[in-house]
Amino acid sequence: MTATRRKVCFPITNRAYYGRSQMLLKKLQAHPGIELKLMLGGSILLDKYSRHIADDIQAGGFEIASSLFNVIEGGNHVAMAKTACLTALEFTNELYTANPDVVVICGDRFEQLAIAMAAAYLNITIAHIEGGDVTGSIDESVRHAITKLAHLHFVTNADAQRRVLAMGEDPKYVFNTGSLDVELAASINTAITRDEVNGFGVGHAIDVERPFLMVVQHPVTTEADNRLHLETTLRAVAALDVPAIWFWPNADAGTGEMADSLRHMRERHAELTAKMHFITNVPADRFVALLANTACLVGNSSAGIKECSYLGTPVVNIGGRQQGRLSGEHVTHVGYDSAEIAAAVTAQLAHGPYPSSNIYHRANASDAVVDVLASAELYTQKRFFEAD
Amino acid sequence: MTATRRKVCFPITNRAYYGRSQMLLKKLQAHPGIELKLMLGGSILLDKYSRHIADDIQAGGFEIASSLFNVIEGGNHVAMAKTACLTALEFTNELYTANPDVVVICGDRFEQLAIAMAAAYLNITIAHIEGGDVTGSIDESVRHAITKLAHLHFVTNADAQRRVLAMGEDPKYVFNTGSLDVELAASINTAITRDEVNGFGVGHAIDVERPFLMVVQHPVTTEADNRLHLETTLRAVAALDVPAIWFWPNADAGTGEMADSLRHMRERHAELTAKMHFITNVPADRFVALLANTACLVGNSSAGIKECSYLGTPVVNIGGRQQGRLSGEHVTHVGYDSAEIAAAVTAQLAHGPYPSSNIYHRANASDAVVDVLASAELYTQKRFFEAD
Amino acid sequence: MTATRRKVCFPITNRAYYGRSQMLLKKLQAHPGIELKLMLGGSILLDKYSRHIADDIQAGGFEIASSLFNVIEGGNHVAMAKTACLTALEFTNELYTANPDVVVICGDRFEQLAIAMAAAYLNITIAHIEGGDVTGSIDESVRHAITKLAHLHFVTNADAQRRVLAMGEDPKYVFNTGSLDVELAASINTAITRDEVNGFGVGHAIDVERPFLMVVQHPVTTEADNRLHLETTLRAVAALDVPAIWFWPNADAGTGEMADSLRHMRERHAELTAKMHFITNVPADRFVALLANTACLVGNSSAGIKECSYLGTPVVNIGGRQQGRLSGEHVTHVGYDSAEIAAAVTAQLAHGPYPSSNIYHRANASDAVVDVLASAELYTQKRFFEAD
Amino acid sequence: MTATRRKVCFPITNRAYYGRSQMLLKKLQAHPGIELKLMLGGSILLDKYSRHIADDIQAGGFEIASSLFNVIEGGNHVAMAKTACLTALEFTNELYTANPDVVVICGDRFEQLAIAMAAAYLNITIAHIEGGDVTGSIDESVRHAITKLAHLHFVTNADAQRRVLAMGEDPKYVFNTGSLDVELAASINTAITRDEVNGFGVGHAIDVERPFLMVVQHPVTTEADNRLHLETTLRAVAALDVPAIWFWPNADAGTGEMADSLRHMRERHAELTAKMHFITNVPADRFVALLANTACLVGNSSAGIKECSYLGTPVVNIGGRQQGRLSGEHVTHVGYDSAEIAAAVTAQLAHGPYPSSNIYHRANASDAVVDVLASAELYTQKRFFEAD
Repeated sequence: MTATRRKVCFPITNRAYYGRSQMLLKKLQAHPGIELKLMLGGSILLDKYSRHIADDIQAGGFEIASSLFNVIEGGNHVAMAKTACLTALEFTNELYTANPDVVVICGDRFEQLAIAMAAAYLNITIAHIEGGDVTGSIDESVRHAITKLAHLHFVTNADAQRRVLAMGEDPKYVFNTGSLDVELAASINTAITRDEVNGFGVGHAIDVERPFLMVVQHPVTTEADNRLHLETTLRAVAALDVPAIWFWPNADAGTGEMADSLRHMRERHAELTAKMHFITNVPADRFVALLANTACLVGNSSAGIKECSYLGTPVVNIGGRQQGRLSGEHVTHVGYDSAEIAAAVTAQLAHGPYPSSNIYHRANASDAVVDVLASAELYTQKRFFEAD
Repeated sequence: MTATRRKVCFPITNRAYYGRSQMLLKKLQAHPGIELKLMLGGSILLDKYSRHIADDIQAGGFEIASSLFNVIEGGNHVAMAKTACLTALEFTNELYTANPDVVVICGDRFEQLAIAMAAAYLNITIAHIEGGDVTGSIDESVRHAITKLAHLHFVTNADAQRRVLAMGEDPKYVFNTGSLDVELAASINTAITRDEVNGFGVGHAIDVERPFLMVVQHPVTTEADNRLHLETTLRAVAALDVPAIWFWPNADAGTGEMADSLRHMRERHAELTAKMHFITNVPADRFVALLANTACLVGNSSAGIKECSYLGTPVVNIGGRQQGRLSGEHVTHVGYDSAEIAAAVTAQLAHGPYPSSNIYHRANASDAVVDVLASAELYTQKRFFEAD
Repeated sequence: MTATRRKVCFPITNRAYYGRSQMLLKKLQAHPGIELKLMLGGSILLDKYSRHIADDIQAGGFEIASSLFNVIEGGNHVAMAKTACLTALEFTNELYTANPDVVVICGDRFEQLAIAMAAAYLNITIAHIEGGDVTGSIDESVRHAITKLAHLHFVTNADAQRRVLAMGEDPKYVFNTGSLDVELAASINTAITRDEVNGFGVGHAIDVERPFLMVVQHPVTTEADNRLHLETTLRAVAALDVPAIWFWPNADAGTGEMADSLRHMRERHAELTAKMHFITNVPADRFVALLANTACLVGNSSAGIKECSYLGTPVVNIGGRQQGRLSGEHVTHVGYDSAEIAAAVTAQLAHGPYPSSNIYHRANASDAVVDVLASAELYTQKRFFEAD
Repeated sequence: MTATRRKVCFPITNRAYYGRSQMLLKKLQAHPGIELKLMLGGSILLDKYSRHIADDIQAGGFEIASSLFNVIEGGNHVAMAKTACLTALEFTNELYTANPDVVVICGDRFEQLAIAMAAAYLNITIAHIEGGDVTGSIDESVRHAITKLAHLHFVTNADAQRRVLAMGEDPKYVFNTGSLDVELAASINTAITRDEVNGFGVGHAIDVERPFLMVVQHPVTTEADNRLHLETTLRAVAALDVPAIWFWPNADAGTGEMADSLRHMRERHAELTAKMHFITNVPADRFVALLANTACLVGNSSAGIKECSYLGTPVVNIGGRQQGRLSGEHVTHVGYDSAEIAAAVTAQLAHGPYPSSNIYHRANASDAVVDVLASAELYTQKRFFEAD
């Protein structure tokens, strides 16, 4: 009966969250007891980060309830902070009008905390996906602050579960479902063609039959040297003389100087980028296919820790962004040092693929989330839970 | 040397935070190693909540760095949420311009989390006063979310300290200083005259030589029946036929309907309010003096739990707002029921004052806070701390 | 056919605009070629200005497309300016989502210019009602600035038409339809009972069978002495010793100090207000009925100039707010001087009703507006029109 | 004496306004009776539009009172509208804090109207530079709306003066000072070297000793085909096979698709852009030097109409953006048609430089503005002025 369907609002603010949530979204959409409202805001509406994603979403049969342009230019801390505030303001209006039973907050991005705050103040039940992990950057603070505003917790591993409980959440509402990203990675056709890859982005044409690197290096908002750190990685990769696909950084504070540096390097140091292919984004399943095919992932993406644990892809993780996150033997952790990066990548190329690991993988993660959203008893008054 | 002074921003957004922070503010102002910047926003700038407080602050020798009008009218959840968002947006600009070393966030009010979020995204060290307590209302979520964004923690009691540590904060940065409110209460001249009291507010003239009640009942944002709950208390107090001073509710969601109800009762049910005196606000020290002189405090103010524990004032605490907070024997907890409230007040009147308790009291709380702010090593990258 | 209906967005931001637009709204709603979207924002959503108006609107069969809480408290210039900015921001989202063919902007209130700006930047055709008049206060600037953003102009009198053309608007799109307010006034049942009147508001009970005054004095935003000017009028009216209905001021800058003064006068100078009845608002038709029955309207409302010209009600217009507006012989203009005000009211009481005037009246004003909205060729690129 | 200095706030929101206001700003800064406060917001703070301009401003001895990041990404109408609203909100706070005697509003950009609205609501006197002109795009509406909010008017030509007076402005406050841009153009060293030019931007190296074109084509917000119109011009210029310097479009709605098209053309149609050099911006005096040296300016910049009238540079003006603006014989007006554009440029190349014209030039324009700002009687209550 329509009258008893739960209204679930799902704010999506960047390409990665859409990518990793696809299976979940399809199942929410299909569930007879749930009315799904997708709300878009932030960088996912901007071509430079997410070309065509809004179109893809609609092509996927989803109705977009709201499209809120609220990214403030600057690529620095003040722009990031104000983007969060404006996001919160606009989602307040949308959530107030939609009046949902549950709002789903994903991960640890700054604008998701802002939306969680708006939902909490509107007295709406909040479900949080991927709480309890430990990392670097502002994400570390944001993730746990969302946990303390949220009512239903979907964690991806046992360590995270332990921490969410330590923070005073009620065990009855903490669910270790495994990672949606890894569930998706496990379900994807990983074949990819040369034409497909080179149809995205610009620069050197990649031969997918031969070893190539992938670089995904995002800003670390709590560090001051994002430009330098990017150039350190770029010089290391250039020195290796292996073809590489370089992904554009996401919209966190520091992205301005990193993007500027990449443009500068391409225009003024063409010799360093001669074997690099630059991509702003690809569909989520093609990103996974690239992860499955690359000889080594370099940078600081969580995909290196999570998806690659299952795929067995060698990873060189740089700097503090993923520091503390549960990671498998496929990851070599290095500092911001060209020689150290180059040596680690060389070793990973020599090593080759690792066996698949299940530290982040559980079958049917998205089904588990849907079940809880459809049937859990909802509440809004939180209370710090202390085991006796 | 000026060059090495730490710049401390102190956002004040309501009358209560100013009241309880006065001793701390004076000591920060006087400290040679600290440059204090007071920033005002929210309801403290509005006459209806805080007549003359901005003037008082300046009269007290403080310079006001910013005055940000950002309270959105409505007195409901959506107005509260948007007020928080606008507050965050405006404080982002102010904090970005001021570029402080530390921002001090007080307590658990919704707009303080918004400011904390802005400060976190600007990569500024955050000090939080009064984390770790457990209560009802949205304050419970807000308080712990601030803890997870903050770097320096000033808690008021051992229970709170234990919880802040459980949430993964580094013991090196968690300080049990006792309560600033109680320190202030312990230092105040509690004598008060009839003329003084009746010079504030309107309505029935109170004779301070004879027993009188005080009622402070704020909205509980996570409950739907704030209007009804207020009227329940009002009918109970009216039935007791004891003179009462009724304080206007603060600016949380629900305040609109509560204020409306009070106006309605005064205009249309004058018989019920015949012995009531209505006050929107008084200076912090006069509030404490009233607490020290009232025969019983009724409602859901934290002052009933904290200041009154030290003062020994009998308290009838109603409903869920303070639920879970460490409370002494001077408090009787009751539900939203006129008969239960009236009976509890009658019993407290019969009992009279309690002995003073130190559960929230430590000497020199404000000195302890100043010392940490002036000398602690500052950092911004947080990491969940797990005892081995 | 639905596909060819024009979508008309009608933002309503205060009680007066709803009142005077009722006939127009009903006809727009009923028109087969028009899809009407009512959008509410500003003070009309706030009980203190507009109790129950949102409910009345829905009871009238209108669907409310949006309800945007965006009034910033303070009652001063900075709060007014920020209210306008927030209004513009929120209406941008709503108008972008609604994607209308035409937005209807009413009159000269500050938030209406903000909405007009948003609509202009969204490249939507703007229709403006009541351009070209001359008055005081910020309204004078706002009104003409809206004219220069608008594409279709509905003016209420020949003087206004001449000015709109002088400002470079294309004569093809300037329509002198007469005043909607006066059309409404001409259609109302003006009988009113004692019970009806006293059911609104609080204070002295008015006997509608005997002479009574009405006072409507709004802030003048470009003047500094709104509090003093209000008290000047209040003392003049008190001295006349005639019962008076006093309407609460609207939400312009200065309203804070005026409301504060009224509260102060009622609480502390009860003798001056002993014969006054205070009303925050009444339904539009009851306001007109009161205008038709009062012995004299005092203050600075445009209703004194417009509706009263048709009704023949004597008016004493105070100060600069209506200065320059075309006014009939029923108006006596006075300055901010108690003696002058009292003398003018006394003279008007002696004179009694004036003959009805048609300077603002044309039959079928609302039909004329509907016809243009339904059938005019719409355009967005404006060009200053100069007669050869 | 300091106490009597007038405080003048000067909000600068894009590179062009800074460029053309340099002489004025230096004189305001130097004037003993004026305290200048420069406030930066909008695209001037963004590297992609204005690399280093904020640094240049400080290097020029100016103190920057505020730096407000408020450009919302999207490059479409909704982003433009929301940028204006956010700009107005933030400048309200800054202007309220600064409390100036006068705010100077430049030209006709959308965010300048937003700031003018904020200033008007704060009851601050507004001076407007360059009112009364007629053009296309949203600029046409914006310019005249600013006029109706402004109190002091500095127009650049007799036609504009006539229109400002027709719109009801008081002749006592309307000053035909000539154009600041042209005054600057007349004072510049127009020599420019090959190295200087090629040091800005990227692409084909320009030989300034040989004929080269300049293209400056901005979005027209009231038109839907900005991408197509840009490509039409690009194909026309490519076909001429003459080296060209192409300037990046400004931040108006439509810029997103135009920038995207330029990137696409460079990446995917390198043959068309082989002789093009792309520049995001240059210092104002170097822009004028390029105008003085180019064989023909192509596009829709106001510099083609104004600066080039004085410099005698041949101009091909495309489409509706400058339609209606007073223009000299050096301009050929064409539509959005590749063949027409190419033919017109060919004809202009054959014709060569035109004699200098004074239609926009008066000596000492900036002195005239400074004198008025320093000495005019200031007022805030406007009144439509009608000549008898």
